[in-house]
Amino acid sequence: MTKRKELSLEPMLKPKSVAVIGASRDSDKVGHIILENYINGGYSGRLYAVNKNADGAILGVDTYKSILKIRDRIDLAVIAIPAQYVPDALEECGEAHVKTAVVVSGGFAEVGETELQDRIVEIADRYEIAMLGPNCLGVMDPRSRVDTLFLPTYKLSKAQIGGVSFVAQSGAVGSTVLDLISQEGFGLSKFFSYGNAAQVDEVDILNYLMKDEETKVIVMYIEGIKRGREFIEIAKKVTKVKPVVVLKAGRTAAGISAAHSHTAALAGSYEAHEAVFRQFGFTIAKDISELIYYSKIFAYESAPAGGNVAIITNGGGTGVLTADAISSTKHLTMGELSEGVKKSLRSRMPSLVNIRNPLDLAGDADAKRYEDALTAVAADKNIDIIVAIVLFQTPGADSRLAAEIIKIKQTVEKPMVVISMGSQYTEMHKIMMESGGVPVYDSPASAAMALEGLFRYGAYKKAKDSK
Amino acid sequence: MTKRKELSLEPMLKPKSVAVIGASRDSDKVGHIILENYINGGYSGRLYAVNKNADGAILGVDTYKSILKIRDRIDLAVIAIPAQYVPDALEECGEAHVKTAVVVSGGFAEVGETELQDRIVEIADRYEIAMLGPNCLGVMDPRSRVDTLFLPTYKLSKAQIGGVSFVAQSGAVGSTVLDLISQEGFGLSKFFSYGNAAQVDEVDILNYLMKDEETKVIVMYIEGIKRGREFIEIAKKVTKVKPVVVLKAGRTAAGISAAHSHTAALAGSYEAHEAVFRQFGFTIAKDISELIYYSKIFAYESAPAGGNVAIITNGGGTGVLTADAISSTKHLTMGELSEGVKKSLRSRMPSLVNIRNPLDLAGDADAKRYEDALTAVAADKNIDIIVAIVLFQTPGADSRLAAEIIKIKQTVEKPMVVISMGSQYTEMHKIMMESGGVPVYDSPASAAMALEGLFRYGAYKKAKDSK
Repeated sequence: MTKRKELSLEPMLKPKSVAVIGASRDSDKVGHIILENYINGGYSGRLYAVNKNADGAILGVDTYKSILKIRDRIDLAVIAIPAQYVPDALEECGEAHVKTAVVVSGGFAEVGETELQDRIVEIADRYEIAMLGPNCLGVMDPRSRVDTLFLPTYKLSKAQIGGVSFVAQSGAVGSTVLDLISQEGFGLSKFFSYGNAAQVDEVDILNYLMKDEETKVIVMYIEGIKRGREFIEIAKKVTKVKPVVVLKAGRTAAGISAAHSHTAALAGSYEAHEAVFRQFGFTIAKDISELIYYSKIFAYESAPAGGNVAIITNGGGTGVLTADAISSTKHLTMGELSEGVKKSLRSRMPSLVNIRNPLDLAGDADAKRYEDALTAVAADKNIDIIVAIVLFQTPGADSRLAAEIIKIKQTVEKPMVVISMGSQYTEMHKIMMESGGVPVYDSPASAAMALEGLFRYGAYKKAKDSK
Repeated sequence: MTKRKELSLEPMLKPKSVAVIGASRDSDKVGHIILENYINGGYSGRLYAVNKNADGAILGVDTYKSILKIRDRIDLAVIAIPAQYVPDALEECGEAHVKTAVVVSGGFAEVGETELQDRIVEIADRYEIAMLGPNCLGVMDPRSRVDTLFLPTYKLSKAQIGGVSFVAQSGAVGSTVLDLISQEGFGLSKFFSYGNAAQVDEVDILNYLMKDEETKVIVMYIEGIKRGREFIEIAKKVTKVKPVVVLKAGRTAAGISAAHSHTAALAGSYEAHEAVFRQFGFTIAKDISELIYYSKIFAYESAPAGGNVAIITNGGGTGVLTADAISSTKHLTMGELSEGVKKSLRSRMPSLVNIRNPLDLAGDADAKRYEDALTAVAADKNIDIIVAIVLFQTPGADSRLAAEIIKIKQTVEKPMVVISMGSQYTEMHKIMMESGGVPVYDSPASAAMALEGLFRYGAYKKAKDSK
């Protein structure tokens, strides 16, 4: 593939004007759902519907027989019509000077129609339209309220506004992750499902997100990379600016073969990809759950100064398990509390509390005891990272403790995560703490994995910065 | 430690009469909470309160100054009084021919009071009282409604009745797991938190649960094993009867040291423990989340005939990730669909569906398409295990599909699990499917790990049975 001009994706994510081509009165049609999502989502730009057969308005939106009839410059055209009509529609978009297009329609290379796909790429290139898709869910941006997803809204909880951008080749993986992160406090910056990647691909998207100030963390699900050399170029640059988490499908022969059948992606050797990811400081996830764990740590925390961890807990056993999980990582270790901090803790803690790391505050620990312990440990120069285990099943743990943790977190300048495990009562406090800026993990293993990732990326970046 | 007479735990879990020693009018007192839990929990046996200072009834329960005053044979005495009064209370229990006792009080070996602890062991041994604790949460049995836990009920959702028994040295880990499994469909048989294990320990409990017909799966959190030789003896026997999942704290030097400080447990070499667990077919978990994954698979499924897995999905990317996860295990592999089944699938599936494994039914797959696919694959002799991925974010997936999965599951005689990931809408269908007998996993990795555990235990048991 030849190197081509870089096209701006800004009008796709922050459009002042949107035209839905294939807008329909039929509520089952994709074009109807997309138009409806724009209206219900509170998009405040100028919205137009295009349907070559329609008269009058659809869902109260002015409808045109062709995009050429609209007397406005269109930033984003969302194309949701049968594949064979896409070339003509795109040609008209070109004539109308449309800047970007999302082709959600399927029926191209993924079913063997490579010629049809080549045609739309040729048109988009000729008119310098940045085209996402075809065969994709498109984009979402909760700030600009752009949303081309055509999924029933009751099936998919919407994520809040945040700093994590998520890029997925697969629509299903993308929508699953979108739904999952709706339960997390960190929130979404941008979402891209780019399907066949006929023109705009992961290289363009990475390039855009690298410069996007609303994006703090980039998270990707990739099946195959088409432009290897360009990918390496952008990979080298992007992690100097912000963390990138990647889940690459096709780790095994069975996975590679399945990926090829799915998006015609040439997954290639996983080892080769992994080597590139590692070389450029990407954080590698091996499962969707790990994507979430890493997203969270990078959204909330900056690199630690070192790998010395202190654990503070109201459950002894969970403290032991967390010490195991931390010590099982490659770079993290249980720190030794300094003598001064030990003395200070001894004077503040009940006599039953054994002053060591993990620091077991006992099952009756309340907000005050956590405050005393966290404040002392946060000031310890021997400690780089704090893990506070809060089991809300215990008598002393309640909303006051959660509020105290939030308050302390604001003053602590080291990475500090909470581990809380449980059902409703715990879940309620997890939401509370995450809204207050505290990342909460659901197991010792997930917290340790996330912190190890944070440490690794910090070390990578420090090495690069010092060059 | 000398070998001692085996004491029956049956009267502790299925008591016809319970006395709460230390029952109190003060609603903050442990003795009050325990008595209240018996009343609110609907325990239908004979209930007595003991308080040396009390007159009249507490919470409507007849109250006695001493257990000796009760004109009834007591199966279980729950002792919740300060440590120094426990020996006298236990002595009276002995005189009153009480069969079993749960000493929830702390203040014994865990704080250096080993002599006090030795005294109560001597008394319990002399009177042949099976004594659990001290320093423990005690027991729970949702069938007999025995519940000695003194945790606020609003903090801890109660598990439903089921086949998994959970044994935890740590009260905090125990209560966390109890709370977590309240969200799972498999339900609880018995719960043991045995604290200092002064007399009754993991050996006695394993021995009891091995014979307990209500228990299908035994799940353990262990810090240290006191009676090594006896443990090996029972370990050898128990896995011939039912699966045992174990999470052993102290995998690392830091964990071992923390465990010693927690329950004075001598965690010993993890490798040595692991070798014993492996030799006797235990399933080893390394995190609390893994305990849940394994509990679920053993609760719902029996051993597969082989390791050939078929994946059926409505999301291509998730199919690829699951193929990766399955192929990354040691014993499982992606099966090759037989020609006959391929032909049958070809005739029933839309032309866009590529007939292979993973079988991607596409995002519009509905109940009928899943039914056709699952029925065909279930009949394939090349396939031993079925993984059905159901992403409820897609247009075709709804409650009718969940109901169809439940119906098919009842006819499939191979292990069959579902992977569904998402928030509320998905969670609702997870509960529905699990209530209907279908184990549901929240990621490809967790499903693959659980199925690998199921395969391993099946292979272990087959090897033992054939001897």
